Amino acid sequence: MTWDPRNVIDVKRAGRAVATPDLRRLIEGYVTGEVGEGPMAAFLMASVIQGLDASETAAMTRIFVDSGGTLSLTGIDRPVVDKHSTGGVSDGVSLVFAPLVAALGLACVKLAGRGLGHTGGTIDKLGSIPGMRLDRSLDAIAAQACSIGCVIASQTADLVPADGAVYALRDATATVRSVPLIAASVMSKKLAVSSELIVLDVKAGSGAFMRDVASAVELAETCVAIARDHDRRAIAAVTDMSQPLGEAIGNALEVREAVEVLHGMRRGRLRDLAVAFAARSVAELTDDVPEDARARAEAALNDGSAAAVFRAMVEAEGGDPRVIDEPDAVLPSAPVELPITAPAEGFLGATDAAALGEAARALGAGRARPSDPIDPSVGIVLTPKVGDRIEPGQAIGVVHARDEASARAAIDAVIDALTIVDGPVDPPGLIHRWIEEG
Amino acid sequence: MTWDPRNVIDVKRAGRAVATPDLRRLIEGYVTGEVGEGPMAAFLMASVIQGLDASETAAMTRIFVDSGGTLSLTGIDRPVVDKHSTGGVSDGVSLVFAPLVAALGLACVKLAGRGLGHTGGTIDKLGSIPGMRLDRSLDAIAAQACSIGCVIASQTADLVPADGAVYALRDATATVRSVPLIAASVMSKKLAVSSELIVLDVKAGSGAFMRDVASAVELAETCVAIARDHDRRAIAAVTDMSQPLGEAIGNALEVREAVEVLHGMRRGRLRDLAVAFAARSVAELTDDVPEDARARAEAALNDGSAAAVFRAMVEAEGGDPRVIDEPDAVLPSAPVELPITAPAEGFLGATDAAALGEAARALGAGRARPSDPIDPSVGIVLTPKVGDRIEPGQAIGVVHARDEASARAAIDAVIDALTIVDGPVDPPGLIHRWIEEG
Repeated sequence: MTWDPRNVIDVKRAGRAVATPDLRRLIEGYVTGEVGEGPMAAFLMASVIQGLDASETAAMTRIFVDSGGTLSLTGIDRPVVDKHSTGGVSDGVSLVFAPLVAALGLACVKLAGRGLGHTGGTIDKLGSIPGMRLDRSLDAIAAQACSIGCVIASQTADLVPADGAVYALRDATATVRSVPLIAASVMSKKLAVSSELIVLDVKAGSGAFMRDVASAVELAETCVAIARDHDRRAIAAVTDMSQPLGEAIGNALEVREAVEVLHGMRRGRLRDLAVAFAARSVAELTDDVPEDARARAEAALNDGSAAAVFRAMVEAEGGDPRVIDEPDAVLPSAPVELPITAPAEGFLGATDAAALGEAARALGAGRARPSDPIDPSVGIVLTPKVGDRIEPGQAIGVVHARDEASARAAIDAVIDALTIVDGPVDPPGLIHRWIEEG
Repeated sequence: MTWDPRNVIDVKRAGRAVATPDLRRLIEGYVTGEVGEGPMAAFLMASVIQGLDASETAAMTRIFVDSGGTLSLTGIDRPVVDKHSTGGVSDGVSLVFAPLVAALGLACVKLAGRGLGHTGGTIDKLGSIPGMRLDRSLDAIAAQACSIGCVIASQTADLVPADGAVYALRDATATVRSVPLIAASVMSKKLAVSSELIVLDVKAGSGAFMRDVASAVELAETCVAIARDHDRRAIAAVTDMSQPLGEAIGNALEVREAVEVLHGMRRGRLRDLAVAFAARSVAELTDDVPEDARARAEAALNDGSAAAVFRAMVEAEGGDPRVIDEPDAVLPSAPVELPITAPAEGFLGATDAAALGEAARALGAGRARPSDPIDPSVGIVLTPKVGDRIEPGQAIGVVHARDEASARAAIDAVIDALTIVDGPVDPPGLIHRWIEEG
């Protein structure tokens, strides 16, 4: 009998497991055009509703990896670490983590896509630095990993093209929301780059794709299992995204905040999480005990060595290196800046991270479709964190906007996103759980 | 917020009911091209797995009907009945039913598609009569309904184009198997033709789309509920398809068998079912009590009046009217005819109708894809029914084939499809259940 994609779709529709050769033929056929958009979309929807088991998920990941080239980093004399975040509001961890681990003797190579979230992704954020050229060849990436130990660059079209094709269809067909499909997509991109350790930051909360800790844990466990199936080392942390991680929401604004953290000038949850991931990576890949790794990570922020790596990376990628010492002289600024004032007295009981993200997107900081432009200068800075005491009339942040009307709308949205309560509130934990191989 | 098909897909993915305006925009958008094949296929798969409720199913049917023209038959002075079968093996009921009810004073208008089953559909079967022109204009159909009271013609492209577009996508995406989607498709075609009564023959058994009686009852009830929702009158019977209904499986062979039934020369389950549907239709639409309606139907087969209507219809549609008196002189015949001999002694315990249908398709009687040609002359005649006594070496049928190799393969397949047992077997009932409005 000739192979028919409808038989494969029907197996998944009925909730049974698809054999790897059938899955491979389906996905490869979609990439070549042998399998049409309709059958592939029907298969994806059946997969979203009926699920994929561990073996199907690992097979899909492998098929994505096999569809393109790989980035080999075997010539580097330090252990290579790669990091991925599932995305959140004010999530500038990668901007700090990459130069920080390089300053600690590891190499960090991070390829990233453009963001479809409330703000741009890491690439969009770095792109707000004048001169940055983030589309690099695989050779240039490997060379920079050797020389500086730190590369953040755009995902190249050579890697995992099947994932790109399938993701675009998922985006068009409301089939994004599936733990195995998300895990296969994330991990295929990580597995296509050789590294000794993959570090995953899986966000949970209103500002994240995974709204609750349980589903974030499921995604983290699925990703780590895929790595294990491919004989790769991965660790994941499920971290809090019930409120923005840092204070800045917006592309250039987040670069400025990251620069402050890299200079050791800014404390808080963004620094704490970058240090936690860096220390964990060092402890995994060197002989350092966790306490020493953490102390060295703190020191690399305080003594300027992490900032020096960031400067070197920006320079190597064509950007203006003054961003590290005089960010305001280099980064684009919005024409309108209006202060945000506390509406009431009390304690900050909750911050609706998703609503803040939407407000930033409405200002122009994020895109709804891949082709949308983003404005690197606009965004929101909101200082208080859950648990902080709020005084009436206190300046709690600034909106950076293209015009006064959008600024005022953003201020209203920010105020609506805050819940101020009478009594003291415990701040949420930063890291809910670590998930490791084993 | 702008309308986005992904929001509609997502509602169905989550198992919730889709609002009618969203369903309309989705389906109409698919027909115009505003909604792509991927999103529509994802929606269909979500509908197959999560189901559609009665209100969604009725709305989908209405949207299909609204997408094209309708056939108005208001000028006819007799009550109009329309019949549909969900399809089975050796199912020539429509060929008998239509002229029979016309002989009884009703008018029957039946528009049908080309078949995708083991043999062609009713249109393919009639098409084996030389000269038949089954693509008729709506005006010609209405005129013939007035003059002869009996029309069987091809579904025109003017009617329910949205159903045609959606069905083609379902066929390509393994989303055919869904009671509400099947019911909406069937009933939209029936509702687009004005009639006083819609008669549905929902087959249950190995030779039918619905393998078990329970799912056939569900489909029948869903179809009757759609008619009620549209203020139309419908009755349905769930009938046996655990074995072929008649003896002939093949296009010209089934016409010959129908002609014998119309002449009153052939008894058996095909005649019994045609009479049951005709009598029920007459009882529903006239003052006849059921017993009188049945007696009149039997008489119309025995006295030649039903055959006369069939002759008039064939003549009006351009076909050779000699088919009714000298079918062998007119119908195409296959070059090879080989007898089938009983392989053992005993009682026929079961006949695998699906396997017999596949054997006929392999001979060339049916098509796998809409563009496949069919051979009107080939097929299988199998005489015994479940419960019949079989003598060893008894001639139990004939294979009509293009060549000896395919004939021998078909004989083997037929023998494999028969279960011969030692003790007596009760024949299965013909009509499992009637489902009516109310």
